[in-house]
Amino acid sequence: MHRVWNFNAGPSPMPLPVLEEIRDEFTDYRGTGMGIIEMSHRSGEFQALLAETKALLAELLGLTEGQEIVFIQGGGSMQFVMEAYNFLRTRAAYADTGVWAHKARDAAAFFGEAYDANSAKDRNYSYIPDTYDIRPGTDYLHITSNNTIYGTEYWTFPDVNVPVVCDMSSDILSRRVDCNQFAMIWAGIQKNLGAAGTALAIIKKEFLETARTDVPAFLQYRTFVEKDSAYNTPAVFCIYTLNKMLHWIKNMGGADAMEIRNKKKANLLYAVIDGSGGFYRGHAEPAHRSRMNVTFNLASPELEKDFIARAKENGFAGVGGHRLVGGCRVSLYNAVTPEAAEAMADFMKEYMRTRG
Amino acid sequence: MHRVWNFNAGPSPMPLPVLEEIRDEFTDYRGTGMGIIEMSHRSGEFQALLAETKALLAELLGLTEGQEIVFIQGGGSMQFVMEAYNFLRTRAAYADTGVWAHKARDAAAFFGEAYDANSAKDRNYSYIPDTYDIRPGTDYLHITSNNTIYGTEYWTFPDVNVPVVCDMSSDILSRRVDCNQFAMIWAGIQKNLGAAGTALAIIKKEFLETARTDVPAFLQYRTFVEKDSAYNTPAVFCIYTLNKMLHWIKNMGGADAMEIRNKKKANLLYAVIDGSGGFYRGHAEPAHRSRMNVTFNLASPELEKDFIARAKENGFAGVGGHRLVGGCRVSLYNAVTPEAAEAMADFMKEYMRTRG
Repeated sequence: MHRVWNFNAGPSPMPLPVLEEIRDEFTDYRGTGMGIIEMSHRSGEFQALLAETKALLAELLGLTEGQEIVFIQGGGSMQFVMEAYNFLRTRAAYADTGVWAHKARDAAAFFGEAYDANSAKDRNYSYIPDTYDIRPGTDYLHITSNNTIYGTEYWTFPDVNVPVVCDMSSDILSRRVDCNQFAMIWAGIQKNLGAAGTALAIIKKEFLETARTDVPAFLQYRTFVEKDSAYNTPAVFCIYTLNKMLHWIKNMGGADAMEIRNKKKANLLYAVIDGSGGFYRGHAEPAHRSRMNVTFNLASPELEKDFIARAKENGFAGVGGHRLVGGCRVSLYNAVTPEAAEAMADFMKEYMRTRG
Repeated sequence: MHRVWNFNAGPSPMPLPVLEEIRDEFTDYRGTGMGIIEMSHRSGEFQALLAETKALLAELLGLTEGQEIVFIQGGGSMQFVMEAYNFLRTRAAYADTGVWAHKARDAAAFFGEAYDANSAKDRNYSYIPDTYDIRPGTDYLHITSNNTIYGTEYWTFPDVNVPVVCDMSSDILSRRVDCNQFAMIWAGIQKNLGAAGTALAIIKKEFLETARTDVPAFLQYRTFVEKDSAYNTPAVFCIYTLNKMLHWIKNMGGADAMEIRNKKKANLLYAVIDGSGGFYRGHAEPAHRSRMNVTFNLASPELEKDFIARAKENGFAGVGGHRLVGGCRVSLYNAVTPEAAEAMADFMKEYMRTRG
């Protein structure tokens, strides 16, 4: 079996032991005589898996407010639509930290007034603004806890007088966060928690009660809560991979252990950048650096192209920047091992030595 | 490895060789050094897989009108919403063949007038009506080519003067159908074509041009066409299972071979029902019987319960009727082997011998 150092930005690597577990029971899930993808979503086995997955999420995220947990297909883009369709009555505020915030805001603009509560555009999205202009009648403030494209991450969360909805797609369970402060959290699972094909949403009951009812049933969070994510066939396999990842995170020591692991990996790469005398130029301002996505530039697009090509030759996959901004990006989600980050750091040093 | 006779109504069995192929490359897809679920949806490998999957669909379905093919998460329920949201301007007609038709019509009613063009309710949905009351200004007629709950299937398709949208979720590629007669076909893949988590939609260009534009971008078919199903991260693994199933169908001989195979399986079970002297009572009228879902009753709910329990004890899974209607149901999608159908037929005869 051949395995590369995989730094894809999502979909992204899974821990090898998790993959092997899935592989080993692929034709016979727990002695049922069928694979997980051949199983009815209304079977006792899948219902148990679903319940366990929700319980693990509540435990690992430290949920204490009796939040509802649902699984919805369609990724972040579906959530951009549903969040606004369900909760935007007068106006909604969006923290402008880059591309994902724009996508969220633009989707919301279809349903009503969606405005920027702040903006990091003035310094090319290299930081997280810490002030919020909240207009009267604002239904919620939307934030993106980690910005995969610019490589910034929230280290302090907004203290505002409106419900906060957090798109946690790219750093959920990568660190300890007080999840009870948010009216709603949602996340695509394909970065830190499993295979692309489902998002999870965690909603406070009192926030859910404010949701509109003049919305197609399938686009109402209420429907997914009432039908326990089985209004129609859910993405069984994706929820199953989420379950496996949650067990893995728990066995590794939970959110705190993930935070230590992810800090260590990010520090290795930022140390190379900071010690490179400008050969590598980190995009994010140090106080706002993401532990999930280390974004940087080299002296020229040509040199970046060469760096990415040499990295690929040396077995490092997925280090090109996002297609919209270019540059380089190393994504360090939960499954990426410290050894992989170390190998990448060594490669960066070696590359600088030969080209610098 | 333990394998049962699996007659689940969806999600449903996959051919063992397909499962084994997926399993064997689960940690290293084609020498890339990563599993398919760890791979970027923008990678060359996945883009090639996507293009091949579309080409296989066009070939196996015999598409000749240059139809657009897209993959959308959210299953049939998402399609019920999108179909009406995109195409219902004045009114839409629904052929009332049962529960799925009702779900489609009720979803459409949110967006405008959705009416029954006919109804099989008078004989408890045991047949497919062959007349259509199409009102002036009707934007499209929606039909459900196979009805999983009542066990009926279309053997002749409507000849009407409006575009026909066919929900082919439960019999796509199970037989030869002239797919060029439909303005749009869509199908969840989890019955005949792969793992739950994506639907496919096949749309004639001229029909697509009639789609509304005052719809959220993520809910427009146009968006999926323009972005080649990658407006956001698609359900990579599900599309991959679809690709594997299409290869398997092609290797087996395509739609014609599937039709022979599925006819043989269904005939085995209907012969037992018809020869049982009323011990088994088929729900569908013989001329409208589904090859995908053989639905029947026994003399009493108690006897049905016993039948289902004995079947389970003997290694036959998924033979209970849909939770909304009860009774018994044996689903015979593409992956179900003739041997499985034969074993089921034998079991039914043996059960009748001991209980009849």
